[in-house]
Amino acid sequence: MPEPAGRPAAVALLGGGVIGSGWAARFLLNGVDVRLYDPDPEAERTLAGVLENARRAYRRLTLAPLPAEGRLVIAGSPEAAVEGADLVQESAPEREPLKRELLARAGDAAPADAVIASSTSGLLPSRLQEGVRHPERVVVGHPFNPVYLLPLVEVCGGAGTGAAAVDRAAAAYRAVGMRPLVVRREIDGFVADRLMEALWREALWLVADDVATVDEIDDAIRFGAGLRWAFMGTFLTYRIAGGSAGMRHFMAQFGPALRWPWTKLTDVPELTDELVGKLVAQSDAQAGGRSTRELERLRDDCLVAVLQGLRSQDYAAGALLADYERSLFRADGRPAADGGPSEAPLRLHRLRVPAEWMDYNGHAHESRYLQAFGDATDALLRRVGVDEAYLAAGGSYYTVETHLSHLREAAAGDVLEVSTQLLGHDAKRLHLFHRLTREDGVEVATAEQMLVHVDTAQGRAAPAGPEVLGRVAELAAAHAALPPPERAGRRIALPS
Amino acid sequence: MPEPAGRPAAVALLGGGVIGSGWAARFLLNGVDVRLYDPDPEAERTLAGVLENARRAYRRLTLAPLPAEGRLVIAGSPEAAVEGADLVQESAPEREPLKRELLARAGDAAPADAVIASSTSGLLPSRLQEGVRHPERVVVGHPFNPVYLLPLVEVCGGAGTGAAAVDRAAAAYRAVGMRPLVVRREIDGFVADRLMEALWREALWLVADDVATVDEIDDAIRFGAGLRWAFMGTFLTYRIAGGSAGMRHFMAQFGPALRWPWTKLTDVPELTDELVGKLVAQSDAQAGGRSTRELERLRDDCLVAVLQGLRSQDYAAGALLADYERSLFRADGRPAADGGPSEAPLRLHRLRVPAEWMDYNGHAHESRYLQAFGDATDALLRRVGVDEAYLAAGGSYYTVETHLSHLREAAAGDVLEVSTQLLGHDAKRLHLFHRLTREDGVEVATAEQMLVHVDTAQGRAAPAGPEVLGRVAELAAAHAALPPPERAGRRIALPS
Repeated sequence: MPEPAGRPAAVALLGGGVIGSGWAARFLLNGVDVRLYDPDPEAERTLAGVLENARRAYRRLTLAPLPAEGRLVIAGSPEAAVEGADLVQESAPEREPLKRELLARAGDAAPADAVIASSTSGLLPSRLQEGVRHPERVVVGHPFNPVYLLPLVEVCGGAGTGAAAVDRAAAAYRAVGMRPLVVRREIDGFVADRLMEALWREALWLVADDVATVDEIDDAIRFGAGLRWAFMGTFLTYRIAGGSAGMRHFMAQFGPALRWPWTKLTDVPELTDELVGKLVAQSDAQAGGRSTRELERLRDDCLVAVLQGLRSQDYAAGALLADYERSLFRADGRPAADGGPSEAPLRLHRLRVPAEWMDYNGHAHESRYLQAFGDATDALLRRVGVDEAYLAAGGSYYTVETHLSHLREAAAGDVLEVSTQLLGHDAKRLHLFHRLTREDGVEVATAEQMLVHVDTAQGRAAPAGPEVLGRVAELAAAHAALPPPERAGRRIALPS
Repeated sequence: MPEPAGRPAAVALLGGGVIGSGWAARFLLNGVDVRLYDPDPEAERTLAGVLENARRAYRRLTLAPLPAEGRLVIAGSPEAAVEGADLVQESAPEREPLKRELLARAGDAAPADAVIASSTSGLLPSRLQEGVRHPERVVVGHPFNPVYLLPLVEVCGGAGTGAAAVDRAAAAYRAVGMRPLVVRREIDGFVADRLMEALWREALWLVADDVATVDEIDDAIRFGAGLRWAFMGTFLTYRIAGGSAGMRHFMAQFGPALRWPWTKLTDVPELTDELVGKLVAQSDAQAGGRSTRELERLRDDCLVAVLQGLRSQDYAAGALLADYERSLFRADGRPAADGGPSEAPLRLHRLRVPAEWMDYNGHAHESRYLQAFGDATDALLRRVGVDEAYLAAGGSYYTVETHLSHLREAAAGDVLEVSTQLLGHDAKRLHLFHRLTREDGVEVATAEQMLVHVDTAQGRAAPAGPEVLGRVAELAAAHAALPPPERAGRRIALPS
């Protein structure tokens, strides 16, 4: 199986907290073997929980063929973990001496050509690489929670880091679906945490001054700017707000306002018992009794929905997901899910029910079933030669009659497959029967359809071209032995 | 027609720039009449562009029945605009003297009980209300761009504002699908802009110091924290990161880091020609030659996709959208512009074919005809009493079988009407026949449908409630004399 370029064969993880476990999940689900070291006896439990969340999220995230899960080994020491690793990823608590000690031990025991990365959210790589054997291979690779879903990873080298290590780390992250952002100048907090922290510091002042509660502040984000931030950053958003006059106009108009006293200094509100107590009480109220696990799943479900929504626009993190899926299909090296030109019945179309198909009853709207059947019919037409060129030459099939039966409901996220049987044909007509089934084999709906071939220039029925008719005849021969569907030929009537 | 509670009958808009036009679009698409004043001769053009974007976005945002668009009048003066208005919304440039003059003129000419709101993003309502007649009705109602899609609106009263004005403004915004956030203490910049500005100020430093480009900073947001911010704010996110130990643990672990020098002071980078030039050049590169209009549509498409994704999770802005759609369905449950409860046949649904319904043959996709028929069925169900309360009590009708006949093609822009005949019924079933006709009377398609009443809690067929059955019987009596449709009872077969 061809591996996506740059994907490491084996990764060593030092630290198995929320971030380390998130790394484990991302690598394992992308087919990479993982050896994990964590001195905390609770680490395996944390890992199991995160991995369960990640598997659940990936099932809903993509229909693309994920590779077989990597193998997980719990190592008894940093040295045992890094043996033979291509990439070492350290995710210990944010204390510089602790991280430096771990990185130095990893450097001594790892292969000389392994990349050694730290998940630190703000410590300087120049300091972290001091005392590591072959310091030129030490980089920062700073991910975001949940690591298995959020694509961003900041890659930052220190004074002694070689360009090759930065490139190799970025390629490794890219190969497991992430979006490396190479930070061009080493500063505390890199880029993302500086932005997040500026916002959070201001938010803490708002709570300290009783201007707003934690719940109100969160609402001020998620019903407003946060919706845009899922796909456009501040600068592009402001460019649009500036209108056709562009960024220079925007700066002229709003730049002066930056001097107004709308944010606090970087002074941190004194974290008195009283302020911490207030934050805790407001946060408890906001959580409304939901456990962290419940909140994690809510978060993951929303992230998956947002990512799938953005994928439909082929933009931002959605374009990245689409690219990632294409790489999985390429790596998987197998064509579509059917068995050949005259498979009986044809398996032409698979889909995941999108969220926007739901109606007020909480299942897919009736018209969406026909959309799925229509897509299968289109796939069949392409199969018999009704392609771009054929359409351009003025031939096409139009549906003239459809009989739908709804047997079960389909919900958002369900994976459905259409199988198609050719019931009959003549020079101008195709008589089809589709079945829509869930992954568990349960039949959700059926559609019987009659299509008529048209001369689109004249706007009237006309025989199909000889090549198309030839392929239709082949298909008819392959389907001749299939039993007639029980629901074919139905008419609608009240029971008498 | 029952209007959503609090929806104003007529709104006056003072200022028709990007924000004022966004307000116009939100109110008009929600059936509210708008009178707009703007001295800029370009304002009508801005408005037309924003309105076109908004119509396009709403078609994709919801299948719920939007009311007929409100009427737009361009007024020649602030006084003419505010005459008879329930709500005055001022969206002039962010200059206090200009706003105060407009608000004072509005206060003199508007009805004494009109709410007067300012869209200011940071000026204090206590100062804005000085010199306005009846200052107790002056509030801030601060929206976010694009106003027709982003739900957040900060509502803030000044020292002289009455609680009733805050309540009425919030109700008016809520009635058009927004999420009012009542700001409990008047401060410059309210809540949201303080947060956004803290982040942006930090971002400007990163550009000024050449740590990152505008494109990199935007990526640091939209591939990372921004994806979460679409549905969870900073505090809930951090609570989750703190794990089961909760917010107190998180503060203990990360609070000290707030003192690290990870953000700049609120000093603003000097906006030298050089820095502005750098921002402009990077922003141009980021836009990649796309016009503001193109970027706006990309933004709107992504927002719609994110909102629809979140709706499937019934969370954050998605839960709000679901609520809003339910209110539209409730409002739609009126006797339509037809001949009465038992008209024969029923004329329940009219539509204009949207451009995105077209398929590769250049007519509406087959599934869209069923969407139109499904909407007519929904209208019939509301007519016989299957409303919000009935659904909530666990009863609904599900379509089990549909027979569609396609007779003509429909093109984008065609105005179509569905007429519906009840062919039969029993305690559990409805047997319907729909015809879809063009304005010129030509029949485009027909649909015969069988619906079964279900107990949604049990997930199985059950008799409908007595009130619903009573109305169905009335309808059946009214339709008894209609001739049976020629295409009823068809089955699909090749001609023999």
